[in-house]
Amino acid sequence: MSTAAGGGSVPIPEVVIVRLPLYVRVLTQLRDGGTEVVSSRELGTRLGVTPAQIRKDLSYFGRFGKQGRGYNVSFLVGELRRVLGLDREWNTAVIGVGRLGRAIINYPGFEPEGFRVVAAFDADPDQVGRHFGNVRVRSTSDLDRAIVDEAIDIAIVAVPAAEAQDVIDSLVKCGIKAILNYAPIAPQVPDEVKVRNIDPVLGLQTMTYHLKTMGSDRT
Amino acid sequence: MSTAAGGGSVPIPEVVIVRLPLYVRVLTQLRDGGTEVVSSRELGTRLGVTPAQIRKDLSYFGRFGKQGRGYNVSFLVGELRRVLGLDREWNTAVIGVGRLGRAIINYPGFEPEGFRVVAAFDADPDQVGRHFGNVRVRSTSDLDRAIVDEAIDIAIVAVPAAEAQDVIDSLVKCGIKAILNYAPIAPQVPDEVKVRNIDPVLGLQTMTYHLKTMGSDRT
Repeated sequence: MSTAAGGGSVPIPEVVIVRLPLYVRVLTQLRDGGTEVVSSRELGTRLGVTPAQIRKDLSYFGRFGKQGRGYNVSFLVGELRRVLGLDREWNTAVIGVGRLGRAIINYPGFEPEGFRVVAAFDADPDQVGRHFGNVRVRSTSDLDRAIVDEAIDIAIVAVPAAEAQDVIDSLVKCGIKAILNYAPIAPQVPDEVKVRNIDPVLGLQTMTYHLKTMGSDRT
Repeated sequence: MSTAAGGGSVPIPEVVIVRLPLYVRVLTQLRDGGTEVVSSRELGTRLGVTPAQIRKDLSYFGRFGKQGRGYNVSFLVGELRRVLGLDREWNTAVIGVGRLGRAIINYPGFEPEGFRVVAAFDADPDQVGRHFGNVRVRSTSDLDRAIVDEAIDIAIVAVPAAEAQDVIDSLVKCGIKAILNYAPIAPQVPDEVKVRNIDPVLGLQTMTYHLKTMGSDRT
């Protein structure tokens, strides 16, 4: 295990990082279903990835499996969670408390995974001071100080498209390095800042191509 | 333009399909901002993709640019929308009308992009018959007939994780070929069915790795 995560000598490709949370998801399902050992073949089938890819992906983080014996599910879940930094809590702030922002604040899926919404911001003075869930809405003009005070790790952007880039620029200036963006734009950020776009429309738009190709007679 | 989209002789890699809606997004922003022509270099900068990749991606669909002259923005938006099947409307159904499902039904971003929520389903008899937005909730036991009656193209799954695979199995049996899945699982579907997972937690979990790596002193 000496070459496992934390050594950090080999740079890990972003495509691998992006797959790991899915590994964690599937392995957790297996563990909770009572599975103790899983082969790379079975894991691959569940993830839509080849067994060779699974072995290669996991090899970045250490020697998890024994040849021909498969992976210990509980151990692998624990190790991958540690690699991904999921063995601790992270503070998030939601920017924009319109319908979408409020749904995000109330989203029940974050807290059990260690993501706490500890602050909310809005540019509209009528929203400032209101409470949603356990957080009080602050003015975006206080962003700078609040991000430090509340030790915000991750910003969740839920403002309209037209305001999103400006908000993201402010967040970057405040030192935020991770942004979950719900606004339907392709934001510009410096290299050291990570952005993940949550955009259901983009998801739908990648499927219509296939629908059109499969069933053009239906149109 | 004779080799443009619709010919369908060359299979297009899925990674290219997945990028195209982002191209449309960025090109639409440029067009609405008054830009008439854009170079692959400028487009690449905005998308975080190399100019060579842009040229290669677009070459699957025809000869959109003139050497050294850049792309006509309006024309390219129109062509890519047509390639992706975005020049028509698509009917969607939301399965599960809990807090998340209701937020999806009311999400203002779908309709302007041609995605209409025309039906909603829930297994809970207390929900059946209620109205959210313009749709009346039906029983999931009517799924089969309703999907045909309402000509549903795409199902949007917003049920709890424990029920999601069963719901997805039913949808596949009903002939649904495109599923936008909000449940935090990695669903199993036949090859011909496309699934896109909308999962903010997965997005967050791919960023914590970087946060941890950048600022391990903060933990």
